[in-house]
Amino acid sequence: MARTLTLLGATGSIGASTLDLLRRNRADWQVEALTANCSAIELASLAREFGAKAAVVGDESCLPELREALAGTDIKAAGGEQALCEAAARPVDITVAAIVGCAGLAPTMAAVETGGTVALANKEALVSAGDILKSAVERAGATLLPTDSEHNAIFQCLAGNDITQVRRILLTASGGPFRTLDAEALESVTREQALKHPNWDMGAKITIDSATMMNKGLEFIEAHHLFPVSLENIEIVVHPQSIVHSMVEYHDRSVLAQLGPSDMRVPIASCLAYPQRMETALQPLDLAAIGTLTFEAPNETLFPATRICREAIEMGGGAPAILNAANEFAVAAFLDGRIGFLQITKLVEQTLDRLSAQAPGSLEEVLAIDAEARAKARELLETHR
Amino acid sequence: MARTLTLLGATGSIGASTLDLLRRNRADWQVEALTANCSAIELASLAREFGAKAAVVGDESCLPELREALAGTDIKAAGGEQALCEAAARPVDITVAAIVGCAGLAPTMAAVETGGTVALANKEALVSAGDILKSAVERAGATLLPTDSEHNAIFQCLAGNDITQVRRILLTASGGPFRTLDAEALESVTREQALKHPNWDMGAKITIDSATMMNKGLEFIEAHHLFPVSLENIEIVVHPQSIVHSMVEYHDRSVLAQLGPSDMRVPIASCLAYPQRMETALQPLDLAAIGTLTFEAPNETLFPATRICREAIEMGGGAPAILNAANEFAVAAFLDGRIGFLQITKLVEQTLDRLSAQAPGSLEEVLAIDAEARAKARELLETHR
Repeated sequence: MARTLTLLGATGSIGASTLDLLRRNRADWQVEALTANCSAIELASLAREFGAKAAVVGDESCLPELREALAGTDIKAAGGEQALCEAAARPVDITVAAIVGCAGLAPTMAAVETGGTVALANKEALVSAGDILKSAVERAGATLLPTDSEHNAIFQCLAGNDITQVRRILLTASGGPFRTLDAEALESVTREQALKHPNWDMGAKITIDSATMMNKGLEFIEAHHLFPVSLENIEIVVHPQSIVHSMVEYHDRSVLAQLGPSDMRVPIASCLAYPQRMETALQPLDLAAIGTLTFEAPNETLFPATRICREAIEMGGGAPAILNAANEFAVAAFLDGRIGFLQITKLVEQTLDRLSAQAPGSLEEVLAIDAEARAKARELLETHR
Repeated sequence: MARTLTLLGATGSIGASTLDLLRRNRADWQVEALTANCSAIELASLAREFGAKAAVVGDESCLPELREALAGTDIKAAGGEQALCEAAARPVDITVAAIVGCAGLAPTMAAVETGGTVALANKEALVSAGDILKSAVERAGATLLPTDSEHNAIFQCLAGNDITQVRRILLTASGGPFRTLDAEALESVTREQALKHPNWDMGAKITIDSATMMNKGLEFIEAHHLFPVSLENIEIVVHPQSIVHSMVEYHDRSVLAQLGPSDMRVPIASCLAYPQRMETALQPLDLAAIGTLTFEAPNETLFPATRICREAIEMGGGAPAILNAANEFAVAAFLDGRIGFLQITKLVEQTLDRLSAQAPGSLEEVLAIDAEARAKARELLETHR
């Protein structure tokens, strides 16, 4: 029997990978709802192709365009954040939560509250609202499957094992495109250079986060929420080839690693088929052809983002939410050409220095901290100019 | 409560590693029986140290010496193959079967027949008598835990997964100390050179097998028996650093790998504590310090042993038992200075060409094939001189 699926963020990079997998196994899936921010034409076309029951745009101003593009079909069109959450609340076998940034928080929470299985590709949700999300998962009896390649790797390396027997989690990092640059060269990095990731083809936000190593810092926080291992037992190791997606070391010194092609369809497929495996027909890993895998310690002097993230999660309270909001703001400012590459992490650290917040107790409080942090980051940016 | 353990082959390399782990966790273990071939003094000393109930030498002529060394203790001394099998048949929580070569076959079988857990470090048992051993495991409801680092790695990579979802097993091989030599240089390899393994400190037989790649061929056959994956889906990949101990690829192209220090205490510990993990206090893997892991395809022109093994298991019947016996004979002949390095695999292949046998139906038939193959190898060696 076909399994039902809702895809939050259908027109993004994770969305495209998910739909590609569904396309190769059409008979196995019944699509319930597809959502996008504002790409109405593309969303409508996907909704038609997959026979979705509903298509939702987060930006309500794009709803008329969506309605028009879906004219003559049975597909229900809707728009706005409330509509996103309603789509996410439809009961399905699996929800893929792939809306980038803090915008994905409320719909992800709505999906979790159905008590179903949620493949979580939205790392900001865990960073900003980790405790709230985890409580909701527990309350609803939902199953959270990490889709990020690193956390999916860790999840796979924990299968059949007991988390209490873990000695260390080894989070691998490509080191980004600027791993070998010095401080002077980093100063003059351009937007175009930063948008070219050596191994992964991803969205703009995460590609910049990879270049600053903020992505790895956010993943560090995410790992702490997903896997109950103390902070000092989560280590980052730089592995430029992005073949080993992360590792788990057990007390006996066995290290389990998950390797694979740098293709998000692999971890997504592992979530879609969990606890079984599905055929992806991707080119399999050819280690003899790859030849060499290298590993090195991260350089937190040149790339302070992982240190900043570790400090934020140690600080606790609202610090991770402040960090995430400041970073979303700073990345947007960099992409707009308003700040240089090195200013991204500086602005994040300054915002964290100037602002503090209690641990948020609800999504509303997370969003309030988020707004406050963005305002503070904007203020710092403007005073600084 | 302490767990009971019998160690078959206490004075060998695997035996020493096992006892080292027990020594670090003395209160957790009660040693039932320890066995050796003929090292009576060492065996007696270990039996005293661990408070074993029985100590057995396989070579009956060493029994008087053992008796003398155990005088004044309650430890029961015994000798001969029948006594080895009786020791192996004592009910215990776990038996470590670490007698090298075909000599370990009968005691391993006796341990399996108790229906307990057997940590199998004797690869020849599976190579020569794979089907017989597997039937016995099934009949007795025993649990077989592979202790060889590669098979233990594969076993760990299968945890929480379903073998039917496996696409390939990737068996890693160091390539041995002569991986980079050409045919001419290989011709003149000495016994001393062959006994130096780059990564592992092991017994003489397995060190020579590593140098010829016969060890990997035997492991290929062993993997086929332990894990129901078709022969063409077991691949050998050369990995000179011996850090990745083997891998399993699933249908979705996820590859799980087990890594660890090149220390047999890691896989042994994983068997001793299974399905939990025990603290080994070994130096943990430091990938940043190791820096580089390399992978390459095996060279079966210079090192034909893996091809010979693949052909033997494809041939089936008694071929693997003939192969194993001929190899044990040839390695001994090389260690005695009677044949050159390249003659080892030649002699094995010649023996396989000249001899054929039905699939053995019992241990006696395995031992008969074994004797016949050794006689044929000896005959070939002598005619050749």
